[in-house]
Amino acid sequence: AVQLDYARAQKWPQPEYDPDLSKYMWMEDVYWLYQTELALEAEPHQDQRIFFVCKGVDYQFEVRLNGQVLHAQEGMYRGVEIDLTDKAKTGDILEVLVFPVPKSCATPVDRNQANQSVKPAVSYGWDFHPRLVPLGIWDETYLEMRPEVHIWSSEVRYSLANDLSVANLRLHIDLHIIESSSNALCRWRLLDPDEQPIHYAETVVDEYAMLDFAISQPRLWWPNGQGKPDCYTSILELLDASGVVVHSVKRKVGLRRVRLVMHPTQWQEKEVEQFPKGRHTSPITLEINGRCVFVKGANWVTPSMFPGVVDVDMYRPLLDMAQQNNMNILRCWGGANVQKEAFFDMCDARGLMVWQEFTLACNRYEGNQPYLDVLNVESRAVIKRLRQHPCLVLWCGGNELFNNWSRMTDQDLALRLLNKNCYQWDRDTPFLMTSPSMGMGHGGYFFRRSDGAEVYQYFAESRNTAYTEYGVTSPASVETLRKIIPSAELFPPRLGTQWEVRHGLNAWQPTSWLDLHTIEHYFGPPSTLEQMVDWGQWLQSEGYKAIFEEARRQKPTCAMALNWVLNEPWPTAANNSLITWPCESKPAMSAVGQSCRPVLASARIPKFSWRAGERLAVQLFVLNDGLDSIALTDIEVSIVLGDQTIIVGRWQTDEVLAANTNMEGPTVGGVVPELGSVTPDSLTLNLIWHGHPEWSSAYRLGLAR
Amino acid sequence: AVQLDYARAQKWPQPEYDPDLSKYMWMEDVYWLYQTELALEAEPHQDQRIFFVCKGVDYQFEVRLNGQVLHAQEGMYRGVEIDLTDKAKTGDILEVLVFPVPKSCATPVDRNQANQSVKPAVSYGWDFHPRLVPLGIWDETYLEMRPEVHIWSSEVRYSLANDLSVANLRLHIDLHIIESSSNALCRWRLLDPDEQPIHYAETVVDEYAMLDFAISQPRLWWPNGQGKPDCYTSILELLDASGVVVHSVKRKVGLRRVRLVMHPTQWQEKEVEQFPKGRHTSPITLEINGRCVFVKGANWVTPSMFPGVVDVDMYRPLLDMAQQNNMNILRCWGGANVQKEAFFDMCDARGLMVWQEFTLACNRYEGNQPYLDVLNVESRAVIKRLRQHPCLVLWCGGNELFNNWSRMTDQDLALRLLNKNCYQWDRDTPFLMTSPSMGMGHGGYFFRRSDGAEVYQYFAESRNTAYTEYGVTSPASVETLRKIIPSAELFPPRLGTQWEVRHGLNAWQPTSWLDLHTIEHYFGPPSTLEQMVDWGQWLQSEGYKAIFEEARRQKPTCAMALNWVLNEPWPTAANNSLITWPCESKPAMSAVGQSCRPVLASARIPKFSWRAGERLAVQLFVLNDGLDSIALTDIEVSIVLGDQTIIVGRWQTDEVLAANTNMEGPTVGGVVPELGSVTPDSLTLNLIWHGHPEWSSAYRLGLAR
Repeated sequence: AVQLDYARAQKWPQPEYDPDLSKYMWMEDVYWLYQTELALEAEPHQDQRIFFVCKGVDYQFEVRLNGQVLHAQEGMYRGVEIDLTDKAKTGDILEVLVFPVPKSCATPVDRNQANQSVKPAVSYGWDFHPRLVPLGIWDETYLEMRPEVHIWSSEVRYSLANDLSVANLRLHIDLHIIESSSNALCRWRLLDPDEQPIHYAETVVDEYAMLDFAISQPRLWWPNGQGKPDCYTSILELLDASGVVVHSVKRKVGLRRVRLVMHPTQWQEKEVEQFPKGRHTSPITLEINGRCVFVKGANWVTPSMFPGVVDVDMYRPLLDMAQQNNMNILRCWGGANVQKEAFFDMCDARGLMVWQEFTLACNRYEGNQPYLDVLNVESRAVIKRLRQHPCLVLWCGGNELFNNWSRMTDQDLALRLLNKNCYQWDRDTPFLMTSPSMGMGHGGYFFRRSDGAEVYQYFAESRNTAYTEYGVTSPASVETLRKIIPSAELFPPRLGTQWEVRHGLNAWQPTSWLDLHTIEHYFGPPSTLEQMVDWGQWLQSEGYKAIFEEARRQKPTCAMALNWVLNEPWPTAANNSLITWPCESKPAMSAVGQSCRPVLASARIPKFSWRAGERLAVQLFVLNDGLDSIALTDIEVSIVLGDQTIIVGRWQTDEVLAANTNMEGPTVGGVVPELGSVTPDSLTLNLIWHGHPEWSSAYRLGLAR
Repeated sequence: AVQLDYARAQKWPQPEYDPDLSKYMWMEDVYWLYQTELALEAEPHQDQRIFFVCKGVDYQFEVRLNGQVLHAQEGMYRGVEIDLTDKAKTGDILEVLVFPVPKSCATPVDRNQANQSVKPAVSYGWDFHPRLVPLGIWDETYLEMRPEVHIWSSEVRYSLANDLSVANLRLHIDLHIIESSSNALCRWRLLDPDEQPIHYAETVVDEYAMLDFAISQPRLWWPNGQGKPDCYTSILELLDASGVVVHSVKRKVGLRRVRLVMHPTQWQEKEVEQFPKGRHTSPITLEINGRCVFVKGANWVTPSMFPGVVDVDMYRPLLDMAQQNNMNILRCWGGANVQKEAFFDMCDARGLMVWQEFTLACNRYEGNQPYLDVLNVESRAVIKRLRQHPCLVLWCGGNELFNNWSRMTDQDLALRLLNKNCYQWDRDTPFLMTSPSMGMGHGGYFFRRSDGAEVYQYFAESRNTAYTEYGVTSPASVETLRKIIPSAELFPPRLGTQWEVRHGLNAWQPTSWLDLHTIEHYFGPPSTLEQMVDWGQWLQSEGYKAIFEEARRQKPTCAMALNWVLNEPWPTAANNSLITWPCESKPAMSAVGQSCRPVLASARIPKFSWRAGERLAVQLFVLNDGLDSIALTDIEVSIVLGDQTIIVGRWQTDEVLAANTNMEGPTVGGVVPELGSVTPDSLTLNLIWHGHPEWSSAYRLGLAR
């Protein structure tokens, strides 16, 4: 990013820990010129060509050679490949001119300025992202020596038989040929998921060729928890006249079928009985390889304010956490940028499905022709790149576009264009215009809603087909808070301090995101920073457990549970995220992991805080998203209060529970005992599954003062 | 139609009056060959070409010359133009082979069989259409001698400035050129709506050319009631080397801008306050030339079972009635076929907007590749033809596709394809996937619903954004009934007679469509056919008035009122239609015309039937869809019962009512008097607008026995 390069030159502090980012503001409105004097290691041979390759410049730019414009573009997602052969030599000046940040209006200085560009809106300022709009060369950029004839593009496309018994693969080969070239020999090798060769073919290619191969009983790609994310390997090699491989492209090919279907029970449930009759709700149940998969995961935002610095090492710990905590999807939210290839490669390998939004969020993107033109070519580039990944299961126009803070509708040309492009280039992957769609729900974002309802109650009363955003906030760890907030400002949190800069106060609503008044509602004013953090993180953990499990209990009517949000672009003081930047896990991360286990005992708990003498009664459920049926259920429920353990019920049944099906159990409960000699800080509700401790659950609830 | 040709040869009765159409059944499953021996009046000159032109064959067919297949096609909407020059001569045999009716399944013998073709489903059997599936050459078909170079296609496209102050016209000229041809001179003349020339241009055309012209302050096309349906005239002439016009194309060009917008009040009204929050409803307010136009009209079905016989004389009286009765739209329902050019020309001229559906209705049209391929090319042909008509204001995928009897969803490839094609070829006309969309309502179809609620109550309680189908049934006239029902079966209506064949009984529900039990509910058993018809038609008239006016009272939240249905394809004994086939007006037609007046006094009436001593109270409204404000309202309300007239209230106000805005008035009422010496058969509620008798209204209500 231009900002990082400038800061480095100025020896400014690392922006993530800089208490004042306003110094970056002027950088938005100037031109930035990257210049290099070419130093070619060797002049290209006669049968070689030299290319300038740039996978992305953020956002509008020109490429120039010795002052002459070779290429001009608006849009960060289309790569550039320029043949410099016979044009460039050592000593020439190659330049990339980066234009100022696109702004549709001078004020308000917020996301509104992004409503006429395909630049992600988040960096214009969001309730978890400071105002800092990156610019620059954001993806790999280099000079490359290539053989005269080389593979310009290649892709394996496939279709699956209705019964999934056969996969028909087609390799498309598009060679870069110049006029004098002769035909070229291409070799295709296909390896199965165990890396064993299963197919070999050769063909002479003029300029374009296709090779077909059918795999019988193909090994399919499955999401996390549903099977292995098996991929085949395609190796395409280009041979020169002497049979030497001069260029090759190796690529994983995962085979899966995705559909967004109406769960059968929905067809009965929701239609009004009497006329006038409206339409039925929209489908949101994801069917992978013929199996309905309950979608569990999180929203994903940019893992850095500067997309240019994001790499595998930044992706890996976050994606490992998601996988290890039983998530099977990430919703790549439309406020952020589209991730790099490494992200999708790693999601492919981990069975993490990706819901990819185009970069529209919370704005009214009007259908002016210049905007539509850029959106058209940029979206096409994104689709053609990502469709090659089995993890990519859902296209979506963007975030919350049909809500009254955005005011777009089904008629908006931008969304009709995206639907058209997705149909044209990747029609077998479902497309949503926006989230939430009809029947789905976004929010809430607090443990206690403004009307006093807790997550325990308001999700139990909700009847949404998918919960694709909901948040419970917590402060960052004490260690992180000490890094981002000066000690004088640390405690108690106050307006006008780094607590506000770091989104702890006044980020969205006055209490966002520290939500101190909720902490005080349950526990009284914390006396130390440590106590505040502990209480806040406890509420986040239990709040998320309540929502994830409630959403799962509503299966099959409900098909998705995705919290807002997995990650964050810089260290916040408080956020709904499950980690603190860059990848420090909050306690809620493993709590969510527990609630997302394939099988678990679950309790529908009426409220958080209890006092002695009250009757605590919960309804029991077995949540089973797994591949196996369950023959025997034996769950013992107890209340643990300090050194007292009161067994309040047991649910035993030998009714066989089918795979991928939940079971509703009895309501059991008992009276919360008086506190004993030891004064505990919480009450634990234990669900112990005899014979299957890995399916047991525990909830840490509050004690009313 | 093959059926008509065969029947004529067999001297069968006219099918519309045939009591038994089962004799036509076998015709569905055989091939039909139309054959002619060419008799060219003159051999073409050297610089002439001879074309076989066929605007439509229903449904799958081949064109053959001397046994050789020249063209094969599935789909009735793409025309065929075949250059026969150097191929055909006098004495040759030209044939059109019509394939059997497409059927996706052998049973059930109903609309299901149409779910894998682009053939209209209605003729497979509907509750107002007998099972009789037409086949044959359904649109104009002829041989044509053309100059060697001629106008292959031409079209005027245009864009309007945001403020509508300028129209930028572009004439596209595509010439049919053969290799040896030289360039051709084209002349473009443009006339304004008064037929005065406003532009002249010439250009030499190679093969393709464009001519641009900007009209400043263009005269716009307006729907009925909103202004004049002004059209410009474009005349394109092709000249030969000596300056003689050898070919010309004359075409009306209407300029208007259409948008489907969210009415501003909707953004506030419908969103739930608390999280989780769903999306907002879909927009359904039609904005024409920047003005929100309340849409009033009717559904349109095929005016004949045989599309081939439909012509201007069949269209004219129906379209005249619609226009004269203050309608501004017809919804060309997806169960029927797309109408001929004459229909759209006449709608253009009358300011009747057209909502055009593709031929999908009440079925699950799966996205199999052969079906999608035909749908793709057929829909493109329909779009490119109809987009040239200013009347065409709304594209729609089809009828009731998102209800549980169809079970399609937003994800269905057929609908995504239609969105893509509409975007690609006519993107500035709104596109709906289906009706009803979110927020809209279809039904009910009875004066009294199955739960006993009358149209007066259940529409007053409904809160839909558009009512795009609702029906109130009535019997045909006594004269028509005598023509279609043998006298022995005429009265009382019984199952197993022509009453059932003619959709009077058991057409959909047991009581459809005669709905005798509702007639009996209010009036007791009718003692004569005449009485039954009179009572049934009375209920239809008052029922439709109640619904049209209630929908208008709900403006602006509600934006559309379209009854099911204007017309019918053959004479039914009872139907929701406003006419009996071919164009016999029912009393409800003019009743609807009254309720659709631009301005009227309207009463929200609580129920139909009243007894002496009851208090009849109604809420008053002024409904104003007009272009003018109303300075003074002075409405006197009276109850007329035989020779008694009781004035029950008066609403006087000098509050100025803005154009295109309704006004809610007081509730006024009085006690229904005891019957006097004259025993009337009804009670009339009169709303007399002093000074504006044309805005007065009257409602004929029932007297409880």
